[in-house]
Amino acid sequence: MVTNSQAPIKVGMLGMGTVGRGVYKILTGNADLITARAGRPVQIEKIVVRDTTKSRGVTVPDGVLTADAAAVLENPDIDIVVELMGGNEPAKEYILKALKAGKQVVTANKDLIAGYGKELFDAEKEHDTDLMFEASVAGGIPIIRPLKMCLAGNKVTDVMGIINGTTNYILTKMTRFGSDFNDVLKEAQALGYAESDPTADVEGHDAARKIAILASIAFNTRVTSRDVYVEGITRIDATDIKYATELGYIVKLLGIAKERDGEVEVRVHPVFIPGSHPLAAVSDANNAIFVAGDAVGETMFYGPGAGEMPTASAVVGDIMEVARNITGGVNGRISCTCFEEKPIKPIGLVESKYYLRLMVKDRPGVLASIASVLGNHNVSIDTVLQKRSDGDIAEVVLIIHRVEEQNLRDALTIMEGMSITKRVANVIRVEGEDA
Amino acid sequence: MVTNSQAPIKVGMLGMGTVGRGVYKILTGNADLITARAGRPVQIEKIVVRDTTKSRGVTVPDGVLTADAAAVLENPDIDIVVELMGGNEPAKEYILKALKAGKQVVTANKDLIAGYGKELFDAEKEHDTDLMFEASVAGGIPIIRPLKMCLAGNKVTDVMGIINGTTNYILTKMTRFGSDFNDVLKEAQALGYAESDPTADVEGHDAARKIAILASIAFNTRVTSRDVYVEGITRIDATDIKYATELGYIVKLLGIAKERDGEVEVRVHPVFIPGSHPLAAVSDANNAIFVAGDAVGETMFYGPGAGEMPTASAVVGDIMEVARNITGGVNGRISCTCFEEKPIKPIGLVESKYYLRLMVKDRPGVLASIASVLGNHNVSIDTVLQKRSDGDIAEVVLIIHRVEEQNLRDALTIMEGMSITKRVANVIRVEGEDA
Repeated sequence: MVTNSQAPIKVGMLGMGTVGRGVYKILTGNADLITARAGRPVQIEKIVVRDTTKSRGVTVPDGVLTADAAAVLENPDIDIVVELMGGNEPAKEYILKALKAGKQVVTANKDLIAGYGKELFDAEKEHDTDLMFEASVAGGIPIIRPLKMCLAGNKVTDVMGIINGTTNYILTKMTRFGSDFNDVLKEAQALGYAESDPTADVEGHDAARKIAILASIAFNTRVTSRDVYVEGITRIDATDIKYATELGYIVKLLGIAKERDGEVEVRVHPVFIPGSHPLAAVSDANNAIFVAGDAVGETMFYGPGAGEMPTASAVVGDIMEVARNITGGVNGRISCTCFEEKPIKPIGLVESKYYLRLMVKDRPGVLASIASVLGNHNVSIDTVLQKRSDGDIAEVVLIIHRVEEQNLRDALTIMEGMSITKRVANVIRVEGEDA
Repeated sequence: MVTNSQAPIKVGMLGMGTVGRGVYKILTGNADLITARAGRPVQIEKIVVRDTTKSRGVTVPDGVLTADAAAVLENPDIDIVVELMGGNEPAKEYILKALKAGKQVVTANKDLIAGYGKELFDAEKEHDTDLMFEASVAGGIPIIRPLKMCLAGNKVTDVMGIINGTTNYILTKMTRFGSDFNDVLKEAQALGYAESDPTADVEGHDAARKIAILASIAFNTRVTSRDVYVEGITRIDATDIKYATELGYIVKLLGIAKERDGEVEVRVHPVFIPGSHPLAAVSDANNAIFVAGDAVGETMFYGPGAGEMPTASAVVGDIMEVARNITGGVNGRISCTCFEEKPIKPIGLVESKYYLRLMVKDRPGVLASIASVLGNHNVSIDTVLQKRSDGDIAEVVLIIHRVEEQNLRDALTIMEGMSITKRVANVIRVEGEDA
């Protein structure tokens, strides 16, 4: 006899793109395993798509695909709504509708969680439901649950992640082959590692959403994508990478979130990190998130940060957890953890170590002038390399000791106005080592 | 008004060695954060120690320390029993007593979980309690919960881990400085990285317990430490490490668990892994666990695998999860997941790639004889290095293609009986690359 606690959990999916197809494959392909581990079967009842006739690479039984969102949102048989449409609307409207109807929700939508977390989690709390989003950050890598649960005893101080596969792929190739950004971008687009409009990836906006989510959880305060200072990788060129290598660093695009003295820093930008740092070895399209806590010390979570099956793996993990909660009658047990309001530190007040590359006139006294301007702004020099000169213009590379960003910016503004300066070729922060 | 759901959760600790002290520090030092995240205060009520007068490096209020285990086990006020005594008895008796009394249990005891899991989890199930053990494997690294929850949709195929810090420290130093095992061991003992009796670490028994626990969870079948094939690192010498480097490998002691066609392999032994493998970069006393699943692909979890505060971090994460379960009235929700009985493959039937180092007489035709013996046993050669000869004895290094272990053993037995063979200096499996 099928008792109630063995009855299938019924899933309604919104959207069936790449990740949706992956979820379908796992739930059907590993059905026995999932039933055993979740304690009861998990069954896809309805899938809402725009075009029900389109071929999707998997065989979906008749009657499952529908163009009518109400077939999921207003269907009393559906226990869990899995939102995989992406973007803001109508995804947000649908999720809110589902929560209000008392349905559990699983989503991979980083835009929504990073941009509208408060609204969504308020609804989750009000209706005592689950809203899970492990797949919204770093694809298949378990990171949300480890942060919320396993590391819960820690005051987390740092979360730093390679959380955009496209830019990591590009930087890896640039480092390995000495190639230029634009050439590698074209190659990445041809191979499907970068989109035809690569802006969200290469300008850092995708990473910004993810670090906003991680910062909110790590520091128990609401951080939205609008709070994140963002620089992309389009200004990194082969010369910078060559110098990084020479100085023992690797160039990575990192999402960085730190809490110091009750203030939160959240930013996405390229960095030099020491070759010995655990993040330095994370290559190609892989992701990794480095977490430092006062008790645990330094940990790292590594894996595929995107893609059909890895992202679907995270979605299915959430579905199974929600299914167990339904069986136990304990949905809504862990909801939003943003119980504090911590100030976000403006980028000008953030302290970093820096790499500077300057093109200057090659004449006596130039280095002294540069050093003097920096010194006047309390900017102190760690390392100087002066290597290339065409007789007229020399390239000077400086590593600058830890300093408040505004000081350096002021110094650079003055330098840019000086007759000896041809241009400030690049300014890149150094992370992952002591002052 | 303090309602029942805001009343403190009361913890009774069994043992207060290094990890116990760490748990005490976290629960008192991060008390506000823990209260907010767990939803209510977590308070240490009693700590059972042999000698209540001994100084413990933290100030424990009067009346908390006691030499009487009944003060925890038979104390109706205690909600969660945290067992940090280690070893088999009386820890097992105490845990069983606590579970039978309906108390929740958190333990860091790998010996017990790996050796007596069935008995303990049967009691957990019978009494509808929680028995959590995140700290029993890889110290502060979240791995049990990610495997059980986040990756639950995956058919896990491989779990490979650097799960013993002492041996990783020794191998790292041997690799970095070309030193001999015994010299580094002595240094590690002086620095506190190895115990005065290092047997459990260097012979692989500690890692065996941990890989048994990971295999049980990954494959949903009971694997005990007695099922694990074990070799330690005492036979690795500087010469093997030199050849590893030359061939692009790193020598590590790994716990390895694989499922292939419904059969489980579980073993601990030194391996050559490719320098590009994520585990290769894990150095010093750090741990890391590599997990491959059919959906997620390859993931890795990295961090400190032992020590006061990292291990305590994992214990406190478990305590907080149990506390939330108490508040929700849902203890015993995820219990033992060994719902299958899969056969363990004997080591003779396990397939590996190998590194062989042979000392042979330096005369014409020797290599042909070796190749012929190997060939007769279906052992096929990938790479040959013949480098050192004192005119009489030559050192031959072979990398052998993937083969069933028994075939290689048979071939080696014959070789050892041949007059041209001085000795088989070492045989080390190669892992982490395709056949």
